[in-house]
Amino acid sequence: MPTAKRPAKKPPKKSVALHNARAQRASAPVIELDALNERLGYFVRRVQVWIFQDFIRRLAHIDVSPAQFSVLVVISANPGLSQSELASTLGIERARLVRMLHRLESRALTQRLPSAADGRRHALQLTREGQKVLAKAKALAEEHEAVLKERVGAERHKVLLEALKAF
Amino acid sequence: MPTAKRPAKKPPKKSVALHNARAQRASAPVIELDALNERLGYFVRRVQVWIFQDFIRRLAHIDVSPAQFSVLVVISANPGLSQSELASTLGIERARLVRMLHRLESRALTQRLPSAADGRRHALQLTREGQKVLAKAKALAEEHEAVLKERVGAERHKVLLEALKAF
Repeated sequence: MPTAKRPAKKPPKKSVALHNARAQRASAPVIELDALNERLGYFVRRVQVWIFQDFIRRLAHIDVSPAQFSVLVVISANPGLSQSELASTLGIERARLVRMLHRLESRALTQRLPSAADGRRHALQLTREGQKVLAKAKALAEEHEAVLKERVGAERHKVLLEALKAF
Repeated sequence: MPTAKRPAKKPPKKSVALHNARAQRASAPVIELDALNERLGYFVRRVQVWIFQDFIRRLAHIDVSPAQFSVLVVISANPGLSQSELASTLGIERARLVRMLHRLESRALTQRLPSAADGRRHALQLTREGQKVLAKAKALAEEHEAVLKERVGAERHKVLLEALKAF
């Protein structure tokens, strides 16, 4: 990104090198990423941030975050599963999941019932309200995915999904 | 998404269903991800978290985070660039970048010199110490990348890098 704003003061000598560096960049406007070009993590992070921003914006009015969405989907598809099963499935730290479930319960979206198999465990369920919110969330998440697919291209979307799943 | 909604208390029949659900999962241990299977963001996030954890662990003893690494690399490759150029290149929020630069300066890794072109701007530079730390960080980041490449496979690593760069 070139920058050509210079209502210049009085360039002291020291800055000549800097000035040249800047002038060089002005003619070659792309800023060099250098070693970052080979770091998968750098590009994964940029895409992840973009995706989350879009997802969060689209689901803001129903107040469902990406992590909450994952939790609701998995509870709904596996009614009765335990907190630890859910935590390990989603790779969420246990303490964080407990906080999330408290919050979802306080909104009456999920509930923890005593498990038949083991009284000390809790079997997770969605409430009827939780099902309604999840249905809306799924529809919005599909809109998000459609936009994402259009942005990356259907073929590349498929390639990415396969490669990342295999990780 | 089937969920038996159960109003609570101890209706024995319900618990049987839960018990069965649990027993079924025990024989088929894979928990259903349902709609998450089609959400690129879910898999991008999981991979990003894995990558960041590995990167952070490897660079912990030199106290360089992934974001700090990006900042050091880009300043080093583009000496004299401005804070706003750096922020827009890396997609970092301006306020966050300012905090990061303060911290890097307090460790004497970076410095902001008055720009020749515009006295109000700052031209970013690495200090000699910053160059040393960056050299170590680059070597560790390459070890990280080698492990990552082995984990995903060289071919898939290439595919991912290309597809994510094109985003």
